[in-house]
Parts: sequence; C-alpha cells; structure tokens
Amino acid sequence: MLTKTDRTTLRQRPHRGSHDFEAMAAILDEALACTISFVDEGRPVSIPTTHWRMGGQVLFHGGQGSRLAKVMAAGAELCVTVTLVDGLVLARSAFHHSMNYRSVILFGQAVEVTDPVEKAAAFAALIEKLSPGRYSQVRPPTDKELAATKLLALSMTEGSAKMRSGPPVDDEADLSWPVWAGVVPVRMIRGKPVAE
Amino acid sequence: MLTKTDRTTLRQRPHRGSHDFEAMAAILDEALACTISFVDEGRPVSIPTTHWRMGGQVLFHGGQGSRLAKVMAAGAELCVTVTLVDGLVLARSAFHHSMNYRSVILFGQAVEVTDPVEKAAAFAALIEKLSPGRYSQVRPPTDKELAATKLLALSMTEGSAKMRSGPPVDDEADLSWPVWAGVVPVRMIRGKPVAE
Repeated sequence: MLTKTDRTTLRQRPHRGSHDFEAMAAILDEALACTISFVDEGRPVSIPTTHWRMGGQVLFHGGQGSRLAKVMAAGAELCVTVTLVDGLVLARSAFHHSMNYRSVILFGQAVEVTDPVEKAAAFAALIEKLSPGRYSQVRPPTDKELAATKLLALSMTEGSAKMRSGPPVDDEADLSWPVWAGVVPVRMIRGKPVAE
Repeated sequence: MLTKTDRTTLRQRPHRGSHDFEAMAAILDEALACTISFVDEGRPVSIPTTHWRMGGQVLFHGGQGSRLAKVMAAGAELCVTVTLVDGLVLARSAFHHSMNYRSVILFGQAVEVTDPVEKAAAFAALIEKLSPGRYSQVRPPTDKELAATKLLALSMTEGSAKMRSGPPVDDEADLSWPVWAGVVPVRMIRGKPVAE
C-alpha cells in the first residue's frame, strides 16, 4: 500500500481511486507505453515512452543523447501516467456516457542506474515483458551498447491508481428510453507475427 | 501543415516526426484517451482523460468541480499527448528491440466553450466518435446537464506527430543470429457488446 499524499488523494469520486501496490503494478505491467511529464522553463512537456517494472521500481530508457533521458537523469520532478481503456460505456442519456479504464499516476524523481550488470538485467526484463522467454535467444548487449543507453528508475513511492468498471448508470427516469445501453469492451490484442 | 516551433522540432531521428495536420488528426481520432499535463506549483501533473476532435479543435470535458477542467478553463499552459502502440519490434540483438507507434503532442492553452448550442453539438460529436449513429437515439442533454459540464477546446496550432513503423533494423553482423525477428502487431479491438 502506498502512502496517500495530498496530490494522490482523489477529491472527485474517491471510490475510483486506490493506493494498493499490487493493483498499480498490474496496470503498469499490462501497459506497453506511458507518458512522462516534466517542467521546462515553467511550461509542461509530456513525452510518450516505454516503461517496465522490476519490483517497486518503474524503469525507462533512452539513448545518451535523448532529451527525456537527460532531463530524468538530472533529477527533474516527474509525473508518469499509464492508461488502459477497457470499455465504452453507452448510457441511455448522452450525459451518462462514460468509459471504463484503469490508470496509474506516479510522482517523483528518477535515479540513473549506471552499473552495467544492473543495466543488462533491466534490459533483459524489458525484452521478457515484450516476449516472455526471448531474452536467452537474442544477441546480448555489448558493453558499448549498454553504455550508449541511459537507464532510469522511478520508485513506486508516491502515486495511485484510478479506475472505472461496470455498466452505465442512468437516471431512474431514463431507464425506459428506447435505446440499447451497456458496455462495448475494448482491448489490446497481439496479431499474427510478421517475420522480417 | 502546422508551423514548426522550437519545442515541436525533433532533434533525435527527425525522420520520425511530422507536422502534417491530417496525419495528426488521424491519430487523435483513433485514440480514445489522451494525457493532459500542466504545471502545479512548479511541478508537473498529468491526467489521463478522453478527447475528441472537431476540425482543428481538440475537445475535452469534465464536471464543473473537476480540477483538470478548472485548471484548463483558467488558461493554464498545457501539453497534450496521445499514443497508439502498433507493434512490438523484435530484433535479433537485444539493443535493437523497439516498438512501432504513432503519437501526437500538442501545446497551448484551452478555451472554455460556454454556449449551450455549441456544447450540445460538441457532446454529440463525442458520442458519435464512441458509437457512430448513436447520438440521434439517446436522451439528449438537458440545459442543467449542459451547464454541469465544462467544455474546453485546444487549437491544433502548435504540435507534431511522431511515429515508427516497419521491421527491426539489426546490425549487418547480427543477421545470421539464430532467432526469429520481425514485428508482432498490436491493436485495439472492440469486443462483443454487453447489454446492461
């Protein structure tokens, strides 16, 4: 369970929020991409990128020349979000249409990991996330490749999950309105692999 | 075509970027959710939400009590991102693994739309995005419901798209490494509707 802080306390619909570590970890593990935000000269900048998780650390990587990797390594305050859309909630009234989703928000500063052994283990975990069992088959990274990539770790210390599930919630007076109501599930699937 | 600005100029791999309006519009239209970032007391905050598009305007909504809607209506500087993951790029070397994706980044300040006729038309467009043909069948919004929801519009003035597609790009020396290489396509599908 993460400690609730002022900026991770939901004021609207608090029942949709959770500070449960396992709930947050499951969402982070299912998502292939996240958005990382930082402040540049007083203005917000968000960059989509790939993330993965090892225990209580969320990991990110980028080339040594990457602006985002450099900003993160310099200790910028970050906000990381991940969103999974689970369904379109089609109500009888326009007003009560909604979406089912699961999202995570994390705040904090990342730490650069420079040890080559730790870096190699982390990149192995990324490849295993994409394709379980694959890492032992690929050509492993050389020292030069490890050095060319920055690895950043953000602790799951301050953050929360937010989610909606279930059917539409229409007003009593609309329940006889003559239109189909329910949920259209949405999900990510993997298609047939295309060999190079 | 959007005008390139300093903060929408890609310095790394510029061939992956585009300022083409239609390319950006197509990505925005396909995505069901975006992330909106703003600055709060010098620190970044990102909130996932739903967006939709009408012409050159990207639209967002929230209850009158919603923090994000209030921040946007107050004219905060925003950064909006949308990401579609298209494939897992499995190379022969660990180092050259990648993802295929299409993303959009937009910068600017939103404007609150308060005219009830414009608001009703915008909410109709949102429902049509979720389920084409549905708006004429649902119970339309009342004046009270329209007043209870803030509508915000961000012009597609400053922004860009970024994308990767195609097979892995391995080093010449790795082409005979004995492992399958190629792309695992990833896509969002809609499942069988679940009636309430």
